[in-house]
Order: sequence, then structure tokens, then C-alpha cells
Amino acid sequence: MLHLDRDSRTPLYLQIRNQLREMILDGTLSEGSRLLPERKMAIALGVNRSTVVNAYRELAADGLVEAHVGRGTTVCRPSIGGAPGRIALQTRPLIWNEYFVPRSEEGRDPLLRDLMALLNRTDTISFAAGTPAPELYPLDDFREAMAHVLDTVGQTLLQPCPVEGYYPLRQIIARRMVKRGATVRAENVLIVTGSQQGLDLIARAFLRAGDEVVMEAPSYLGALQIFGAAGARLLGVPLDEEGMRLDVLENILIRYRPKLIYTLPTFQNPSGGTMTPRRRLRLLELARRHQVPIVEDDPYGELYYTDQPPSPLLALDQDGYVIYLSTFSKILFPGLRLGWVAAPRPVIERLSQIKQLADLHCSTLVQGAVHEFCQRGALDKHLDHVRDLYRQRRDAMLVSLTEYGPAGLEWYEPQGGFNLWCRLPPGSKARQLMAEAARQSVALVPGEVFYPDGGGQEEVRLNFSCPPVALIEEGVQRLGAALTTLMRRRKREELGWEMEVETQPIV
Amino acid sequence: MLHLDRDSRTPLYLQIRNQLREMILDGTLSEGSRLLPERKMAIALGVNRSTVVNAYRELAADGLVEAHVGRGTTVCRPSIGGAPGRIALQTRPLIWNEYFVPRSEEGRDPLLRDLMALLNRTDTISFAAGTPAPELYPLDDFREAMAHVLDTVGQTLLQPCPVEGYYPLRQIIARRMVKRGATVRAENVLIVTGSQQGLDLIARAFLRAGDEVVMEAPSYLGALQIFGAAGARLLGVPLDEEGMRLDVLENILIRYRPKLIYTLPTFQNPSGGTMTPRRRLRLLELARRHQVPIVEDDPYGELYYTDQPPSPLLALDQDGYVIYLSTFSKILFPGLRLGWVAAPRPVIERLSQIKQLADLHCSTLVQGAVHEFCQRGALDKHLDHVRDLYRQRRDAMLVSLTEYGPAGLEWYEPQGGFNLWCRLPPGSKARQLMAEAARQSVALVPGEVFYPDGGGQEEVRLNFSCPPVALIEEGVQRLGAALTTLMRRRKREELGWEMEVETQPIV
Repeated sequence: MLHLDRDSRTPLYLQIRNQLREMILDGTLSEGSRLLPERKMAIALGVNRSTVVNAYRELAADGLVEAHVGRGTTVCRPSIGGAPGRIALQTRPLIWNEYFVPRSEEGRDPLLRDLMALLNRTDTISFAAGTPAPELYPLDDFREAMAHVLDTVGQTLLQPCPVEGYYPLRQIIARRMVKRGATVRAENVLIVTGSQQGLDLIARAFLRAGDEVVMEAPSYLGALQIFGAAGARLLGVPLDEEGMRLDVLENILIRYRPKLIYTLPTFQNPSGGTMTPRRRLRLLELARRHQVPIVEDDPYGELYYTDQPPSPLLALDQDGYVIYLSTFSKILFPGLRLGWVAAPRPVIERLSQIKQLADLHCSTLVQGAVHEFCQRGALDKHLDHVRDLYRQRRDAMLVSLTEYGPAGLEWYEPQGGFNLWCRLPPGSKARQLMAEAARQSVALVPGEVFYPDGGGQEEVRLNFSCPPVALIEEGVQRLGAALTTLMRRRKREELGWEMEVETQPIV
Repeated sequence: MLHLDRDSRTPLYLQIRNQLREMILDGTLSEGSRLLPERKMAIALGVNRSTVVNAYRELAADGLVEAHVGRGTTVCRPSIGGAPGRIALQTRPLIWNEYFVPRSEEGRDPLLRDLMALLNRTDTISFAAGTPAPELYPLDDFREAMAHVLDTVGQTLLQPCPVEGYYPLRQIIARRMVKRGATVRAENVLIVTGSQQGLDLIARAFLRAGDEVVMEAPSYLGALQIFGAAGARLLGVPLDEEGMRLDVLENILIRYRPKLIYTLPTFQNPSGGTMTPRRRLRLLELARRHQVPIVEDDPYGELYYTDQPPSPLLALDQDGYVIYLSTFSKILFPGLRLGWVAAPRPVIERLSQIKQLADLHCSTLVQGAVHEFCQRGALDKHLDHVRDLYRQRRDAMLVSLTEYGPAGLEWYEPQGGFNLWCRLPPGSKARQLMAEAARQSVALVPGEVFYPDGGGQEEVRLNFSCPPVALIEEGVQRLGAALTTLMRRRKREELGWEMEVETQPIV
């Protein structure tokens, strides 16, 4: 039944028209059904007859009803599928998959899907995350910064800002980069939705299907996925104690003409290693000789636990070969989605053109609040605080690994960042350990997901930034037990014992 | 000179190493220069000799210095370009343009560049914007919503959220869509960084270079740019009083196999027109018959000034052909960068996969604050308020056009949205009017930028949402004067008078 709102500013005849129109369009009034005669409808609704006449006239103008002498007003809704409740034979639903641009295979690895499911389990001690610990968030300082900017410049921060970002934030980031030795002005900074977007913009600016990209093996999973989705061929360069192996890199540079060299020189994800200053200089030298730009991804540079790390490549580069990326996701809040690119002006301009198409700009409000937060010194205070706590967590993991790790387990001792890289005892498979650890409610990431071109089957990445010290100890103990179980089982198998069935789902 | 901080947790030998390293790497200490002998350095710094010995040993390990018997310790920084102040002959700066993927021509129109420059002039009455009026922002309500969520669920909102968006926001958007007649659940909603990102994701999901896209002529500039940058061929369909002309559309659908039909059926940008319900149903029928998905862009549906507009295509569609897009940029704050896609699940899944690569997810905090704002009824209150004010501005523009517009000027009376579309008197060119109006400090957008395949030279778009009523009257008066000047000049030229020089820059 129709419901009229006599206080509404919409005239009554339009209210009647609208409601009837909806009923016709949604099938409540089916084709051929008759509306109440105008006079009867007027009485039923308590309105003048002319009101109903006007409403019916509007519906007729829209082609939704027809007035027939003698038969009254009937619905002539064009057929669009069957009546409700019946299967409409003429329905032709789209098979959407036929319409999508085909994708490359990345992201469909069932291993990653299993891992994601594992991360959502709350009963699990997770060494699989890559995020800061929520209980360490500087929430009070941020709340104050947000309240302050909304009070003082709220209207500005709710308006659009330039594609490149909120200028005061670009300035303060440039100043932070200068402190780390780089010659960066606000104009060299582009604010992006996390370094993920930075990488995506770089891929869109530089890569076409079939192009080669050099990266460390292992490397950051997000970069593997983005460059892979762009159709690039990923060429892995192994790591040694000083960083990316330049003899291998040089061979690649000679044999191919890669579009980009992608590197995480500082507290590398996942290996935790840091490229030495000497290696950095030689990498720059090689890039210059072969005229290949370097993408330096530096999410962890400010998260050092002993000594400040070497200067970023950006600071050592004198010829503008480096596109530098970093993010507030690791040093502040991952939920903000805020990062930056620092690069030569032509690169900033091209990336900005693409960002304009992609999403116009990052939230002005979030940029304003983060600027205020940095401006009042809260970021540096927070960094001092978390460096201590993350160091404790790293140390707890190192101690626990020594205590509970079975013989043959090796690991690299990271001087910063969030991750600890382990090599399993020979013959132990990371996938199997992931499954066994899941049964003991511990999550980790098997090494193979980080390799651009195979490898890592006997390596795992353990994150130590998220769980508190007690859970790190507990988790590593369980992990040690899981690994021991796995090794015993393998030994039994080698001795000819019956193989255990491994089909049980891990999550 | 070196500066040691004895309160620092960094050991003194590392402080010395770090500072010397920086000086070597930044060129302050040039290749071959000699460090102070260890004993002298120890005295100069007031530290033990062994501290300096350790520092020098570290530098030697990094390959930055060499110890020579008799000659002391010298810098052996690998050469990376010349010394400061000298031109380094071996410098090989990158020519970045050679590295970028070539772009299509969109976005390089000097007309648009001129327009952007004009928008930044503060002395200008702008009818060129497409944004809500900042002085109408519901800042107090938003401030309260933000403070409330930071107080109650701050930690959650600073953490990552699923790619698809913050679930409570997806729910509240789904409920709003249901109120407009569409069968939408939270699972059908993807939160995006403004509808700009929605369009970009759609282009990435559906379009390859050379694909055809059907759109209204004129249409939304952002969509033209995104689809154009994707390399699509844009096929324009003219508008009549009922919306997109379906006879033309049908011919296109028969002759080509376009990938998408893109439409703004409600308060269309730039024309201001609204597709009738009958036309909507027939459009859906055509799309179904030819199996082509429809992208419905609906930024203005809730900004109606007389009657509620017809139901969105999404609500009329029974077979899942419609991908619906909208945004908080027009109804709330453009600076937030928050919009949504509502679509069948397979589309949401594919767009989410691409969004995960593009930027992981939208700021959780912004989503949480907007959810709270909607939840407490502030959005509906705000919409009631601004509908009144925008209606007044539209009416002021209509009245002023009648009063100050020269004979021959025609316009369409929009029932909602932000824009008023004018056809200039025959022979008057919009580009010339833009230049003449700029001299009188009025900005408008010439119609041709909105056409996918030519046209619009005698049309202009006037925005009425931004300037207050008094400025609208003043601006239209100046515009009328500019147009009259233009027409007189043309008449003189026709009569054989000398042509005036038109080279003066407009901004």
C-alpha cells in the first residue's frame, strides 16, 4: 500500500508516482495489472482526484502505464526478466570470467591462500605477519594530532590536495631524508597509498609485459606479485653477507637489458641482511655503467636495533639513478595506508600523472594528521620507544632459537627490521614445517614464496615484531617441537618405515 | 669535526666510524686524504686509543680506508662521480623519458593545462570546479565521529583491514543502496579510493588496448582519461531528453563488440540530464541482449533538488549486468578519497585482486570515521541541509542566466547534481569564451573536453555548487558580458573589420 508523507517537500502526486513506479519496476505490480481507478485511489489515499490524475499522467509519460477507455489504467512495464519467484527463461546472466583481462598466475598459489587463512586464526602464535605490534601504537599522540588538525585546519584537510601530496607532509619527509644524507626536496617527494602503491605506479610507469626486472632472491612478496602481474620476467640475484651478489648482477646486466634493479638494501625482507656501504657504492657504479635505474625499497631503515644502518642508496647516488620508497606502515600505523616515493623530478612527474588517473591523491586528512604527528616530534619519540621493544623481541627470538632449535637449524641475526630468516636442517621442507607448525598453532612463512625464480624450500621467515616476548618463547618452543617431529618422521621414512599420510588440511 | 654523544647507546667507536663513513661517502673526505693518526685522533676526541683503532678497523673492513705502514690511514672511497664543485666527466645521468612506457595522448591537452592554472587563481569566480562547497562541510559532526572512533576502536582502525574494505562501512553502504531499491549486500560492496579508483580498477580488469568502450557524449572527463589511458577506443552516444540515445547505441552494439557501456544516468556530468525510467529499462534490455556489462557511475544520485531521481540501473537490473560506482566526494568531503563499487560477487572479487596489488586497501581510519558519521545519522542530516543550499545556488544561476545571458544562449535545467550545461549562441566558440571570461576573472569548462570523439565546441559546463549565491550572480553577469564581447567581435570580423590579436595568454 502507498504511504504518503504530508510533511515532505515532495508534492503528493510525485510521492504517488514514485511509489507506483517502484512497484512497477520491481515487479510488485506486474504487466497488465490494473491500477485503482483515479477516483477510488483518491478516496483510498485521502487526496484530491486531480492529485491522482497527475500521478497517473506522469507514469503514462514514462511509458509505465497506459490509460484505456473502459479498461482503466494498466501497467505496461517493459519485460525485463520473469516475474519474481519464477525462473525467467530469457535471463542471460553474464559469465564474468569471459570479460576479464586474463591474469598471470601470481597470487593463486594455494600456499599463500593457506597462509592467509592461518593468519586469521586467533588461537595461533603468528610469526607470519609483517606489521608493527598494535599494542605499541602511539594512539594518544595520534589522537591529539588528529584533534588538533581537525580543530585548526579541518576544512582544508577535507578538501582535495595536489596529486603529489599535502605539501607540508612532503616537506617534513624531505627533511627526514636529508637527515639520512640524501639531497631531497619536497618536490622530489610523492605521497602514495603505502609503498605498495609506489611499486604499482613504478610498474605502470616502467614495465611492459616481457620486460626484465632484477631483484634479490629472496625478495619482498608484494614486489614479486606486482612486477609479476605486470608481466615482467623476474631475474633473481642471490645474497651473500654483503648483500646482492654483484658478480651475478653484472652478468645479468650484460646479458639482458633489465628495466629496473629492485633492492631492499637495509634489513632486507625476508633475509634481514643489510648491504654494506662498499657494496652499495659498487651497485650504484654498476647501475650507472649499464644505465639501469635502481628502485630502493626501505621500509625498515629507521627500525635499527644496534647501530644506525649505512646511508640509503639514495644518499650515495650522485647521478639520480635511485627511486626510493618508504612507508609509515612499519614505523607508525599500517591501517593509514601512507607511504612515499623520493626520486628525481622527471620520475615524480610521471608517477604523479599515473597516480592522478589511479586515485587523484591520498586522503588529505590522513596526510595532515601524520604531518602534525611528525611535526610535534611524536614520530621520533615513538621510534626511540619501539626500537627498544623490537630489539627485546628479536633477542627473545634469538635466545629461544638457541634454546629450542634442533641441531642443524641456522639463522641470520638481523640488526633491524621485523624478520628473522632461518635455514632448516638439510632435507627438512618448509612447507611441511608450516603444516606441522600449524597443528601446533604456530604460523610462519615458508621461504619459497619470496623467490622470484625458485628456491627457498628449506628456508622460513619468522616475524618477531608482533608477538610479545612470552609468546615468542612459547612459539619458538612449539616450532622446535614441530621441526623435531618432522625430522624424526623423515628419519623413519629413510629407514623404510611406512610413510605417514600428509593429506590433512593445515588450516 | 666529529661530535660524540657519550649518553648515546651507540658505542663511541661506532659513532666515530659512522661519522667518518658519512664524510667519506658524501665526499667531505676525498679519496687519498689521510685520517688523523690513531693516537692524535684519540687525544682530539678524548677517548681511548683502542676506541679509535676499532673505528678505523671497521672502516677498513668496509673498504672505505686503507692502513699503510708509514703513510697512516688513507681514504679509498671508490669513485662515484667527481668531487663536489667539479663537473664529473664520467657522470651519465639517466634520460628518464627513454625508460617510461609510452603514454597515449590524454591529459596533455593544453586546454586542460590552462584550465588547471585558472583553477588555482584565487581572484577568479570559478564555475569550473566539480566539488562540494567547503563552507558547507559538516565539520563538527565529523570531528565528533572521528574523536569517538579514535577513543573507542582506535587500535583496530589503525590496523590493516581486508582489501574489500572495513566491514561495517560496507554494511552501511549496502543498506543505503537497499533503500534506493537495489539488492546489495555488504559482500557486493568494495571500498575504493574515490570512484576514480573504481574506474581505474574496472579499466584494469576489463580493458586491453584496442577494446571498445561506449559512453555518453558528453561524459565524465575522468572516465575519458582513464579509459583513454588504457588504450580503449571510446565510442560516443549522443544524449536526448530521455538520456543516452538507444538507437545509436544499438547500432554500435551490433557493429562492434564493446567491452563496457559506461553511463551516468542520473544528473549526468556534464549535461545535468537524467535518463528516464523507461530508457533505463530499455538500456538494460539492450545490454542483456548484446551481453555487454554496464558501468553505472552515480556520484550525484542523492543530490536531487526537486524530486527523487529514478531508481539506479543497479536496482532495475535483474540479471547482474550492472557495476555501480559512487563516492563520498560529492556528498561529504572530497579530501577523504572514499568511494565504493557495488557489483556482482565475481566482479568484486576480481576488482579486489587488482586493488590488493594497487594499494592493499583504503585507510581503515577514514573508513571507520565515515562509518560512524553515517551510523549516527549525520550524513542524512547533511544531505537534507545541502540539497536546500545547492537548489538555491542552481536557482540563482538559472535566474542570472535569464537576466544576463545574451540572446541565443540556451541551457538545460538540471534537477540535481552540480552542473549546468549551456549551448552558446551559434558561431560562438567555448575556447574563446573561456579566454575572454578568464580576462574577466571567471572560470568555466569548455564542452569539448567532455567529448570522447569530438564535438562540444559551442558548449560549456558551469558548476553552481561551489560559489555562494552572490558570486554566482556576479559571475554570470561577467560571463554574459564576456559572451557579448565575443559576439560583437565576431560580428565586426564578419563585417570585414580587422581581426583582433588573440595571442594574449588567458592565465
